[in-house]
Amino acid sequence: MVKIIPTVEKMQEHAESLRGDGWRIACVPTMGFLHDGHLSLMRIAKRRADVLVVSVFVNPAQFGPEEDFETYPRNLERDLELCAKEDVDIVFTPKTGALYSDDYQSYVKLEHLPHHLCGLSRPVFFTGVATVVCKLFNIVRPHIAVFGEKDYQQLLVIRRMVQDLNFNTEIIGAPIVREKDGLAMSSRNAYLTPDQRPAALTLYRSLVQARKRVETGERDAARILKEVRDLITAQPETDIDYLSICDPETLIDVERIDRPALMALAVKVGKTRLIDNTILPVSSPGSRSV
Amino acid sequence: MVKIIPTVEKMQEHAESLRGDGWRIACVPTMGFLHDGHLSLMRIAKRRADVLVVSVFVNPAQFGPEEDFETYPRNLERDLELCAKEDVDIVFTPKTGALYSDDYQSYVKLEHLPHHLCGLSRPVFFTGVATVVCKLFNIVRPHIAVFGEKDYQQLLVIRRMVQDLNFNTEIIGAPIVREKDGLAMSSRNAYLTPDQRPAALTLYRSLVQARKRVETGERDAARILKEVRDLITAQPETDIDYLSICDPETLIDVERIDRPALMALAVKVGKTRLIDNTILPVSSPGSRSV
Repeated sequence: MVKIIPTVEKMQEHAESLRGDGWRIACVPTMGFLHDGHLSLMRIAKRRADVLVVSVFVNPAQFGPEEDFETYPRNLERDLELCAKEDVDIVFTPKTGALYSDDYQSYVKLEHLPHHLCGLSRPVFFTGVATVVCKLFNIVRPHIAVFGEKDYQQLLVIRRMVQDLNFNTEIIGAPIVREKDGLAMSSRNAYLTPDQRPAALTLYRSLVQARKRVETGERDAARILKEVRDLITAQPETDIDYLSICDPETLIDVERIDRPALMALAVKVGKTRLIDNTILPVSSPGSRSV
Repeated sequence: MVKIIPTVEKMQEHAESLRGDGWRIACVPTMGFLHDGHLSLMRIAKRRADVLVVSVFVNPAQFGPEEDFETYPRNLERDLELCAKEDVDIVFTPKTGALYSDDYQSYVKLEHLPHHLCGLSRPVFFTGVATVVCKLFNIVRPHIAVFGEKDYQQLLVIRRMVQDLNFNTEIIGAPIVREKDGLAMSSRNAYLTPDQRPAALTLYRSLVQARKRVETGERDAARILKEVRDLITAQPETDIDYLSICDPETLIDVERIDRPALMALAVKVGKTRLIDNTILPVSSPGSRSV
């Protein structure tokens, strides 16, 4: 039976008591409207802990004033059913006001990582993410927490925050889960019309093409980005936010792909902003067959 | 026997193990060069917990580039002796690089409280304080932590941060400890020459005078501040940073003292910046004798 805990106090008390009894807690923070991507995080978490806590909280601090906080898709009833099926132990469902009081004023800010990729068009996003994860970790007290690699920059920010602020929580990145056609799973996919689907798919196809180009020897990032840009802009209703080939740790753009690089992109399809990424692997000289 | 723990990993491991065994941990974060003010915090902490952890760490993040990080007084040997006398259980003495790696980038920032009093002339101070306390709490995992009311604004910032970020730690404020002549205890008092002592004492005398004025019916903050300003500027080598009568929760200046107000001041005596404060009590109409 999945246990629903709606208040901060009860969740904190319960987590402290579980830790005191020696149980290993895993946390999967979500904004709800769960899909197979979330379920994959839960399965990974479940294998590595005794008690799995899934939080369902649409975090206002990570939405800009022009963004979709109000309309972000929500369906708690369905989320709870899915959690029950996945054998989740606890679903933590705090109210907005319980995590952000009217006179709330403390934020966790990172100096460098947010100034790349998604952070450029979403200036409050990573402060909101780092802050709410800090809060959730203090409430749920997890030994481990699992985040999807689809939100690659978010995963980096959280790893960095955890290391810098000395949280005693192991962060696990989980591989991107895709629809059958290759589209990365996202709650925001629900916004897409059937007409927009082919355009949305070019994100994935861009990554596949970039990987192929690197595999067959291309090392010039600008050339690959140019090809990908052409591929995406050929589709109707697409508006590129960024395309980047960058260092997987610092997110600083690279010109030559001499080491494995991150290829990341954000594209609006109609009004829906989609992101995707992949690591472009470069076979090292040592591993090359002669 | 006082146990010295010099590494983050060992401290965190030890704290987790203590908590797991059901011990109640108190933390007194200090920058060392301990004086009777610190000792009073330790005694308060000791009474309310099973294990007392005192951290000794001069936190670079709370010093501005023009401030005295390099020359801040240090004497670990003496600090350890004092801790041993006070029956401190653990002294946590991390190296600077262990808490702030070369690529460190995560900070806890408050939006409102730092924009008053000390925060105006020390723009990085409260970010540094909130950040290091967040880190120390994640390492020491205290049930309670004790801070002196001499650093009144710091105490407010920490209380707010703890509440906002959902730390499960009770924050206790401890009364200001004064030298026999009234000067508030501070590690920086070591900088004062005997000649500067009378000037330094005007901080305390100002507070005493302000309290008397309020007790005898004065309600006009500006009038009291004017008198205090005259008192301080009459002393040689004094340079007022701020004098304020303000709301004890928001730190916003008040014009009329109709409710208990905070009187806070920061004054440079020679090169030494000193702070002090008191609550100006206002007897409520109900409690007034007829």
